[in-house]
Amino acid sequence: MSDLKKQFEKFFYPKSIAVVGASEKAGKIGAEIFRNLAFYDYEYKDRVYPVNPKHEKIMGIKAYPRIEDIPDEVDLAVVSIGAKFIPDLVESCGKKGIKNMVIVSGGFKELGTEEGKEYEQRMIENAKKYGVRLIGPNCIGVLNAEIGLDTFFQSHEHMIRPKPGNIAFLTQSGTFGCSFLEWAAESPVGISKFVSYGNRSDVDEADLITYLDQDEKTKVIAIYMEGLSDGRKFMNAAKKITKHKPIVVLKAGRSKAGAKAAVSHTGWLGGSEKIYDAAFKQSGIIRVNNFEELFDASKAISMQNYAKGPRIGLVSNGAGPMIMAIDEIERRNLELPSLSENIEKELKEKLPPFYIVHNPVDITGSATPRDYEIVLEHLAKDPNIDILMPFFVFQNTLIDESIVDVMEKINKLGKPVVGGAAGGPYTKKISEAIESVGVPMYPIAERVVAAAHALYINGRNLNK
Amino acid sequence: MSDLKKQFEKFFYPKSIAVVGASEKAGKIGAEIFRNLAFYDYEYKDRVYPVNPKHEKIMGIKAYPRIEDIPDEVDLAVVSIGAKFIPDLVESCGKKGIKNMVIVSGGFKELGTEEGKEYEQRMIENAKKYGVRLIGPNCIGVLNAEIGLDTFFQSHEHMIRPKPGNIAFLTQSGTFGCSFLEWAAESPVGISKFVSYGNRSDVDEADLITYLDQDEKTKVIAIYMEGLSDGRKFMNAAKKITKHKPIVVLKAGRSKAGAKAAVSHTGWLGGSEKIYDAAFKQSGIIRVNNFEELFDASKAISMQNYAKGPRIGLVSNGAGPMIMAIDEIERRNLELPSLSENIEKELKEKLPPFYIVHNPVDITGSATPRDYEIVLEHLAKDPNIDILMPFFVFQNTLIDESIVDVMEKINKLGKPVVGGAAGGPYTKKISEAIESVGVPMYPIAERVVAAAHALYINGRNLNK
Repeated sequence: MSDLKKQFEKFFYPKSIAVVGASEKAGKIGAEIFRNLAFYDYEYKDRVYPVNPKHEKIMGIKAYPRIEDIPDEVDLAVVSIGAKFIPDLVESCGKKGIKNMVIVSGGFKELGTEEGKEYEQRMIENAKKYGVRLIGPNCIGVLNAEIGLDTFFQSHEHMIRPKPGNIAFLTQSGTFGCSFLEWAAESPVGISKFVSYGNRSDVDEADLITYLDQDEKTKVIAIYMEGLSDGRKFMNAAKKITKHKPIVVLKAGRSKAGAKAAVSHTGWLGGSEKIYDAAFKQSGIIRVNNFEELFDASKAISMQNYAKGPRIGLVSNGAGPMIMAIDEIERRNLELPSLSENIEKELKEKLPPFYIVHNPVDITGSATPRDYEIVLEHLAKDPNIDILMPFFVFQNTLIDESIVDVMEKINKLGKPVVGGAAGGPYTKKISEAIESVGVPMYPIAERVVAAAHALYINGRNLNK
Repeated sequence: MSDLKKQFEKFFYPKSIAVVGASEKAGKIGAEIFRNLAFYDYEYKDRVYPVNPKHEKIMGIKAYPRIEDIPDEVDLAVVSIGAKFIPDLVESCGKKGIKNMVIVSGGFKELGTEEGKEYEQRMIENAKKYGVRLIGPNCIGVLNAEIGLDTFFQSHEHMIRPKPGNIAFLTQSGTFGCSFLEWAAESPVGISKFVSYGNRSDVDEADLITYLDQDEKTKVIAIYMEGLSDGRKFMNAAKKITKHKPIVVLKAGRSKAGAKAAVSHTGWLGGSEKIYDAAFKQSGIIRVNNFEELFDASKAISMQNYAKGPRIGLVSNGAGPMIMAIDEIERRNLELPSLSENIEKELKEKLPPFYIVHNPVDITGSATPRDYEIVLEHLAKDPNIDILMPFFVFQNTLIDESIVDVMEKINKLGKPVVGGAAGGPYTKKISEAIESVGVPMYPIAERVVAAAHALYINGRNLNK
């Protein structure tokens, strides 16, 4: 195990936790963090220790006035006390041998005040001095679904937690953290590790992707960032990693005003947009354009094989979304090749004469699940095609639930598949069933094509 | 009542319908259309007549061998028989005084065959000769939620129907029709009139917007099109209408390949993309980029007042989406002005010192519903601000359901409001409750800003 891996394991697999600032008062951040750790799914919840000098007990559990009073060994300290107390706390942790801290509190350099900057600097100095690693401040911390761990102050009533899975998500914004994790919880994908790192005073994205690279639970790393503190360090790390593990990035602050706001949010310089774009490309990073696409692309990579090329095979029982997809395929420099001659010939023999058999294959409103099966089987074996892209009108009465079995069968053939359908309760039910057998589904053509694009870029990186 | 209005009323308010091609066989298009009309919500369902020469009864209802055998007066014929029989049927309808037909069947010029073209031409000639107006062919026809009318072959189990409302939707793609109507059914907005016009052999978009302009139930007209047959006619009509009623258009076929596919779908020439774009702008049309945006923009206009200008006032309890919004506001040439001095001063007095009070207003993870109320009330009275744009992290425990009352109150102040939130069950529940009091909500910043943009362009047109 590398030193970094050893050190970071305690952020994600701590066997005991001190909650500094744990409180009785519902709604207070320290109360909610403590409640979530000590009363929900955390595997070692009987080893969660509240630290609070004013109370003997917090929610019925013995509290300690200071962190050094905890008789047990502590793997991780989660902190929500005032910024001015934190530099000294880091020293105390260091002395007690606690080498991992999650600082949830704000009040540091993101405020732009002299005090804030001073607290942050002293905090970092002490961390360096005692070999303590810090996540945060000004963040919601970490989640590891595998052991039911999260350091969030968001209640379980307001925020459901994701299941274990293969997507790691790193985010400068706690807000996006909450949204991404809940979207995952409501989809077939799961989360391996999650970090909201806020001001990123110590542990940064480069450290985290290096750790995640060695984490065998993680298949894809998704990141929301507003700007990097050490761009070179990150890009160097990313360049190595993306050759075997994909990294998908949403970077905010593309506009001048947005970049300025990003700086004021976490106090870091944004850097030039052009430089970012070029560096992302060079590092094999899959850059996405908005937060939905960040989730969509991660979901596709999580569920599907990488694509061996950019050549898409389209099939649909309704033309509208198919035409939108064609536009988007061209815009994204993907390809819509002709089918192989023998494949086209076979399809024409097997399908009704009024179906339009080229690429895209238009199987019209008369299509049945069996028609989809025939077409997709042929696209899967066509050497001209790298990615299968079916669109569905599930509202049409001839498409029944047997389409789910068809998609399960097609998915097992191993060529990447991404699908599209938009509608109400029945369409959602069938789409979810198709996702449960492994095929990611999206409501509009642009999002399906974006997912395909991510699979293609990933394949291109892996094959370098 | 204008002649056109009088003629078109029978498409939307027919008091009796003949279903030509009505069938017993479940799954057949003619069976499903007949079932949906005769056994569901259509106000005059006891006056739905099956026409089928092979059966005495269809689903227990007396069938007529030919349309001229129906003893009752018929307002509308809905047709799903083979294309080759349709030219003669138009003649029979004309002779019986049926002046309105919806041709669901395909098999016309969209096939690209000589027969297809010939059937289409003869059908049109007969329609002209007898003064019959045709919607279709190759379409799913019309819906008027007000009287429970639809000519769809999609079953109610697979496709829920929308409630009456103020959005009219015209679409060349039946697929997008199904999706849009179900999205509406699951949202607070409703539908005034709906037309899927397919090949548009007779009734075209220009006719339909002219009718909808006179339809007082319609506040906003949404259109999906692949290409116009008579661009000048449409643009001339649109130019007049958009001065008092907004038109939102999604046009497919932006790419070369997409344009070619659009042509083959409905057999019309696409025309140059540049010409479309310029003409849309000149006509005051709100052009959108994808199908989700078509719905999002229509929803915003349906629910909210137009905006008096492009100046947005942002507030959030989480920074990530706010920064994405700032990027998008700049990209779309909207504005994020400074707050008026006195407003900013008042806000600073009323809010905790660590909230960041400028535009955007960052009320941090400590924000309560009362904080939103204070900020939004001030943005609403700030003459520098045209559109209120709150983002919410509902996962934060301090935001409870009283935020819904706050938003109801703010919405009543009359300045346009569009909101954003992304998450799981609780977030969706609160978002839906906020929509039910009149404020449209979207999951990501780009979609909130797109909605605001539509309100702004609409305001600019109306104030010309």
